[in-house]
Amino acid sequence: MIESAFSILVRIYYEDTDAGGVVYYSNYLKFLERCRTEWLRALGHDQADLLRDPGIAFVVRSANLEYLKPARLDDLVRVDLKVEKISRSQIFFVQSIRCESAEETLEELVSARIQVICVNAARMKIVSIPPSLRAALVKIP
Amino acid sequence: MIESAFSILVRIYYEDTDAGGVVYYSNYLKFLERCRTEWLRALGHDQADLLRDPGIAFVVRSANLEYLKPARLDDLVRVDLKVEKISRSQIFFVQSIRCESAEETLEELVSARIQVICVNAARMKIVSIPPSLRAALVKIP
Amino acid sequence: MIESAFSILVRIYYEDTDAGGVVYYSNYLKFLERCRTEWLRALGHDQADLLRDPGIAFVVRSANLEYLKPARLDDLVRVDLKVEKISRSQIFFVQSIRCESAEETLEELVSARIQVICVNAARMKIVSIPPSLRAALVKIP
Amino acid sequence: MIESAFSILVRIYYEDTDAGGVVYYSNYLKFLERCRTEWLRALGHDQADLLRDPGIAFVVRSANLEYLKPARLDDLVRVDLKVEKISRSQIFFVQSIRCESAEETLEELVSARIQVICVNAARMKIVSIPPSLRAALVKIP
Repeated sequence: MIESAFSILVRIYYEDTDAGGVVYYSNYLKFLERCRTEWLRALGHDQADLLRDPGIAFVVRSANLEYLKPARLDDLVRVDLKVEKISRSQIFFVQSIRCESAEETLEELVSARIQVICVNAARMKIVSIPPSLRAALVKIP
Repeated sequence: MIESAFSILVRIYYEDTDAGGVVYYSNYLKFLERCRTEWLRALGHDQADLLRDPGIAFVVRSANLEYLKPARLDDLVRVDLKVEKISRSQIFFVQSIRCESAEETLEELVSARIQVICVNAARMKIVSIPPSLRAALVKIP
Repeated sequence: MIESAFSILVRIYYEDTDAGGVVYYSNYLKFLERCRTEWLRALGHDQADLLRDPGIAFVVRSANLEYLKPARLDDLVRVDLKVEKISRSQIFFVQSIRCESAEETLEELVSARIQVICVNAARMKIVSIPPSLRAALVKIP
Repeated sequence: MIESAFSILVRIYYEDTDAGGVVYYSNYLKFLERCRTEWLRALGHDQADLLRDPGIAFVVRSANLEYLKPARLDDLVRVDLKVEKISRSQIFFVQSIRCESAEETLEELVSARIQVICVNAARMKIVSIPPSLRAALVKIP
């Protein structure tokens, strides 16, 4: 198992909330993806560049989400990821969203397992993760 | 097991798509919820009414999603639900999103299992499904 | 001035609302576009088809919005459009969103003027509206 | 005229884009609001706090938007605001979104005028901006 830890902070705005007064449940998927995108960028790979050349995209194949506690307007949350496994054309992430505060232990709001596959963007067909990108991914201690 | 079938049609607009040319992965959760909302409405219960009196809301506790094939701009998709189980304060749904076409067998795009809990909207604490609503739900053949 | 009237009904879901208990202000732009899209479809033109061949898209060049009264969860609203003017590569729409009810006079929630331009989708450069599409647009009584 | 300048950076993610390959036109309104929210926060006022006590919210009364050039996936954009005028219960903003780059002159993508009114959140009725908040706003040089 390849272990890796990466996290970003996300501020909750009106756009993220719903009439129940909490973050709308599909919006956590956006936060989880922002984290995966920034992780790729930190490894030197922009999604827009990958889309142009070599014409690939990472698309979500499955998502398992546990909604434990809601985030609310103006909250600051920490979104993290661990890479659980990388196969020829797939990456398995374990992710969580926690309330960011001064406390040492942060309460978990959302727990997620996300399976991502590498596809040819034009035909949406599964392809191998390009060697150079793959090399960057497996180098992670 | 309580069986029930209900479906709605959803048209895909630009707002639903992303730069990959397909529906953005979190947006399917909106379509799944529209279906659950219309199912409740068909049973005589508006979510806005439930929020005002008795002050309850149904919130998603967990979601398991399999993304099988993407929907695209202008596609017409059918979103359905089956109630798998109703407990004192929870409803377990099996849902799918299929491409709507003239063909007899519709290709499945997204397969989902959604666990919903009934909460007091003001305090976000789990409560029993109100008896009158529960009676309407279990009457389903 | 070319006059034309077209309208669609839109139901308000949790996804459309925010923590203020009303529809989030940017989401009305989605409803306005759904109406323009269905109007084009009613004239025989899908946006996905136009994007593939002849490779054009209609993009919004300017939007003027007056927010008069908020829509709320479960409301049914009517979104309409009138074409004010069509030039070589632009269409000027006057649109409104009204509360749908049994009453004769419907209260206006949002009033909008939307200027749309026809572009080559690949290069995002302004182009003439294709003659066949233009002929369909100006035929409107 | 009260002049004030404030800006934030926004990264464009897949969630912000559409099948045309550019940012979906309603999403710029989210970015404009994030900037106004962070400006209020920089002045010491969280929207969530204002909503709880004294129970007010700032809602958009009108928006005029010029879409000059599209932003794309992975772009970094700068969103700014100037306060044009503050009346008893309204704030008039001039805002713009620009492409952030190493160049000295940044290309303008979106130009906007936003009129915001202060309302009692429970009844959505116009009220005066609270004196303490107003004092903070007019102190801006």
